[in-house]
Amino acid sequence: MSAQNAVWYRENWPNRGIGVSLRVTEALHEERTPFQKVKIFQSDSFGKVLVVDKRIVLCENQGFFHREMMVHPALFTHRTPKRVAILGFGDCSLLAEVLKHEAVGEAWFVEQDERVTRLAEQYFPRLKEANNHPHANFFYGTAEAWIADAVPAAFDLIIDDRRHRRAVFQAKAMEDFCRNAHLVLAEGGVLVQYLGSPLLPESAGLRQRVKLLREVGFDQVHPLIFPEPFAPSGWAGALLAGKQRRVQVFREEDAAERQFVTHYYNEAIHRAALAVPEYIKAHLQ
Amino acid sequence: MSAQNAVWYRENWPNRGIGVSLRVTEALHEERTPFQKVKIFQSDSFGKVLVVDKRIVLCENQGFFHREMMVHPALFTHRTPKRVAILGFGDCSLLAEVLKHEAVGEAWFVEQDERVTRLAEQYFPRLKEANNHPHANFFYGTAEAWIADAVPAAFDLIIDDRRHRRAVFQAKAMEDFCRNAHLVLAEGGVLVQYLGSPLLPESAGLRQRVKLLREVGFDQVHPLIFPEPFAPSGWAGALLAGKQRRVQVFREEDAAERQFVTHYYNEAIHRAALAVPEYIKAHLQ
Repeated sequence: MSAQNAVWYRENWPNRGIGVSLRVTEALHEERTPFQKVKIFQSDSFGKVLVVDKRIVLCENQGFFHREMMVHPALFTHRTPKRVAILGFGDCSLLAEVLKHEAVGEAWFVEQDERVTRLAEQYFPRLKEANNHPHANFFYGTAEAWIADAVPAAFDLIIDDRRHRRAVFQAKAMEDFCRNAHLVLAEGGVLVQYLGSPLLPESAGLRQRVKLLREVGFDQVHPLIFPEPFAPSGWAGALLAGKQRRVQVFREEDAAERQFVTHYYNEAIHRAALAVPEYIKAHLQ
Repeated sequence: MSAQNAVWYRENWPNRGIGVSLRVTEALHEERTPFQKVKIFQSDSFGKVLVVDKRIVLCENQGFFHREMMVHPALFTHRTPKRVAILGFGDCSLLAEVLKHEAVGEAWFVEQDERVTRLAEQYFPRLKEANNHPHANFFYGTAEAWIADAVPAAFDLIIDDRRHRRAVFQAKAMEDFCRNAHLVLAEGGVLVQYLGSPLLPESAGLRQRVKLLREVGFDQVHPLIFPEPFAPSGWAGALLAGKQRRVQVFREEDAAERQFVTHYYNEAIHRAALAVPEYIKAHLQ
């Protein structure tokens, strides 16, 4: 395919005048579910790509940055992560990572849009095995509904992988969600919240999110930063929030001696992801 | 300006089907110098942008990642960095960073294309002061010519900020350059070489570059990785090569107590940049 005639998928960062693009070699699927528009295409060098609601949420060959960093730092921060909940995104790639940890005896996957999960199973079959794991449980409905009904102190980890629009952070729903997340975590539990790009902390609502997490009772809040090559700016972050659990230290020896393969994560990368860029410091106070 | 009618500048990663784009609000300058095509435009949220030979080399508001990380880690690795040479890129933004270090008594800036320097001075006036610094020296010619003529053991640091195409790494010219760089550095000296994106180490020729640096006599070679939001993949790296100088340790206290403002760099970020992603390890052996 010549560069001139090539079809490109482009994702722009709203109102910021920056975008990323991937060359499409084959359109594979497109549908409008009851909740959103879903698109799957084959890209030039990076494998199959899943786009939900105009955002790349899964990239076959390079999705490992996101899924490893949303999972392993949190799991190696907790002393014995037995009960884990993952809230969206529907592709289930985080579930597979969580289930690599032997301590995990119960993993919940919460997603509003079951079609995303089914399509991911169909087009990204490597994820299927994890979905059939005996410890995997599924709830199809909103994260807000699930968490409002969950038993207090029932979980060790909550991984909130939903991709929010900024407005959400200012909403009452977000406050309720964070309050419930604190309630649902057992003592020593950890919440991980996907943050988006830390390039412009104002866009990510960093200051408000840190403030909100502290207000609802998380005494420890710290950012975790990692590459995300297919998001505008190429960079992403999450917030680690501990309920009477320090989140800047982790089981370094266990991380170094992990019994599973990773592509990005290791104990040095974990420490590195906790480093705070100078311009972000002011947003954490 | 509506999104529909907006003009976008787009930069693609050759043969890899990934690109980044910036919304252009005003075209400021365009010319063909004897060496290359230069373009300057005003971007939407990121200030003025300088494009040389189809690559963004300077972005007013977000260029700090690149310039701080190409300079401060190397300068805090060396014990007393007195004599520093910077080879391209012509915008001189690295020169300004180097001159923030009080130990530096002599800084050379080597650039083939003087027009780039003049245009950068005109459109990015904040750089001008550093150019007039009493310790700043300029050589307009190729890096290869400069280094072949330089006095052996005359420099403590060489910062090679040229943006190479891959082919260069396999060329005899590159080997000669590295051999000369080793010669021109005093004992304990450090070479920093810009690497491009570490997303696909093969594209960056990582393995060959590490091998070459070791062959010409650098006993210590280690990658340094940092965000580069305006390069495809959003990520960049450099190689630190030490001539009888360990490059994985640095003057941490001095870095923490630095007497100048940085936006990205600090001592924790320096340590973080030295962490090697799991998939890159194999390329360093």
